[in-house]
Amino acid sequence: MKLATLPNGTPDGTLVVVSRDLQRCMPATPVAATLQDALERWEKAEPKLRELAARVEAGAGEPFDPSRALAPLPRAWQWLDGSVYDSHSHLMQKLFKMAPVVHERPLMYQGVSDTFLSSTEDVPLPSEEHGIDFEGEFGIIVDQVPMGLTPEQAVGHIRLLVQINDWSLRTFAPIEMKTGFGWINAKPPCSVAPVAVTPDELGEHWRNCRVALPLEVRWNGKQFGQADGYQMGFGFHELIAHAARTRRLVAGTIIGSGTVSNENYREVGSSCIAERRAIEALDQGEPATSYMHFGDRVRMEATLPDGSPLFGPVDQRVVKAATAAAR
Amino acid sequence: MKLATLPNGTPDGTLVVVSRDLQRCMPATPVAATLQDALERWEKAEPKLRELAARVEAGAGEPFDPSRALAPLPRAWQWLDGSVYDSHSHLMQKLFKMAPVVHERPLMYQGVSDTFLSSTEDVPLPSEEHGIDFEGEFGIIVDQVPMGLTPEQAVGHIRLLVQINDWSLRTFAPIEMKTGFGWINAKPPCSVAPVAVTPDELGEHWRNCRVALPLEVRWNGKQFGQADGYQMGFGFHELIAHAARTRRLVAGTIIGSGTVSNENYREVGSSCIAERRAIEALDQGEPATSYMHFGDRVRMEATLPDGSPLFGPVDQRVVKAATAAAR
Repeated sequence: MKLATLPNGTPDGTLVVVSRDLQRCMPATPVAATLQDALERWEKAEPKLRELAARVEAGAGEPFDPSRALAPLPRAWQWLDGSVYDSHSHLMQKLFKMAPVVHERPLMYQGVSDTFLSSTEDVPLPSEEHGIDFEGEFGIIVDQVPMGLTPEQAVGHIRLLVQINDWSLRTFAPIEMKTGFGWINAKPPCSVAPVAVTPDELGEHWRNCRVALPLEVRWNGKQFGQADGYQMGFGFHELIAHAARTRRLVAGTIIGSGTVSNENYREVGSSCIAERRAIEALDQGEPATSYMHFGDRVRMEATLPDGSPLFGPVDQRVVKAATAAAR
Repeated sequence: MKLATLPNGTPDGTLVVVSRDLQRCMPATPVAATLQDALERWEKAEPKLRELAARVEAGAGEPFDPSRALAPLPRAWQWLDGSVYDSHSHLMQKLFKMAPVVHERPLMYQGVSDTFLSSTEDVPLPSEEHGIDFEGEFGIIVDQVPMGLTPEQAVGHIRLLVQINDWSLRTFAPIEMKTGFGWINAKPPCSVAPVAVTPDELGEHWRNCRVALPLEVRWNGKQFGQADGYQMGFGFHELIAHAARTRRLVAGTIIGSGTVSNENYREVGSSCIAERRAIEALDQGEPATSYMHFGDRVRMEATLPDGSPLFGPVDQRVVKAATAAAR
């Protein structure tokens, strides 16, 4: 099943059920007004949403335009982002000259969740001097998760998969990391691809609670990376259990994988510029690729191997924010 | 003006206007159903809420029981906690053997905001082995704040003041800090005193965007600390500007001061156990005071010098959580 959120003038939009080919949709209003609403009573809502999905698949509904959709959850009560691709962590440690972190536990931070940008809207940022970077990720959305559950118990709470661009401002990253407090300035709101899908939509490409599909990243129209999502050091079920160790997770909590990255990065490329800069530093002594400029565009999409769509693309520009004051 | 939120079976409760002496209240429903609702259109709502406050002050309304109130915002879209008392930072660095942090920028992390506990409910935590600690803080609630504003522009966005107990699990703190990613396991949901007040309620005790009042902390009935809130290295207006450097802040964002702490900590005591343990380590070579046990009670309250109430007390027990699985 595939779900999306269309704009209706309210912060949470209107939930729609989308056809597999992303060509048609039908309002889910008879079942749930918003995706948050559906997630809060998922066990009851899901079978009814699947009935609507079958009708859309049979040709009912209206045309769906992914570029018009909001983020599936335009705001969420919690956004926890992991960083569990070892090749990404190793490259970041080299780039930022950080001490290596031992991965007995998944790396995870809590980020801004009051705003998730749509896949096509301009991304307003204050300055090119901040080292504007994209980060292609996969993510999950859970229903309510009790405190203290095991990874095995967590599997059933993975209700939806999403594809995320976690915008990052690299000049702040090492400064904020050194405090130990995590990121505020380095992590403005993320963008999310238009369609959230249930795990069964991936078939054999959802394995060990990982997305076993390449994430194709294009920067200003040029191929940048196509790393596969499978090489997570911890699966999403383990990320849930880690997050829920001392807190419950409310329905609608989104958990990210961190930047998708593969050990053979010289062949498959990267899902963020910082990683390419780290590879350049390794190979040539210093980074060569600049971070993004205003007007630059990034496109990210993971499809099934036959090219059939899943999440739809993220495809958008960064622009200078109209700030309230010059800083 | 003083505001509180009473339970009504919904996650956000019912907003009430409370008398100065915390004895009476009146539903704010004609103006705003919830505090979040009021904050989203504060400029229009505030004058009408003040009219209701005048009527409550004149004897209208019904009895108010602070112990029944929820947190003023039982959930919020964003919780950003500073740590800007230098004496606290110095003591924590000694206790956790962390490198000193240079304070050109305020320390701040993003914490769980989907749940704020009331001032009297039991606090469910998984294990005494996690180093259960309280942290007495002051905080502010803002209306919508644009990205990139100056500290001076931020002053007017400080709409309400609150008093917070930021529960902390100390065994996770240094482990998570070393990752640079901030805290997930170390920071379960906070508790908040029952009443949020407009800054004018503090009179001359609201100075330089700081709460110039002692926070009285009692642990199992015994005096533990009465540090004054004034010694912040950065004022709340500076914390807002820092947080909003690369993001807007949605209405209802809560920003905390971090553990209230004073340079003369040997005289005034502390607002968390970790700090006392650090002082013991300095004075006697090792910490002597244990962290909290299940059944322990902590009470925190800041009043005006004549004893008249402001926020009401936080006064609650920690208990063992009914976890979904033994870990």
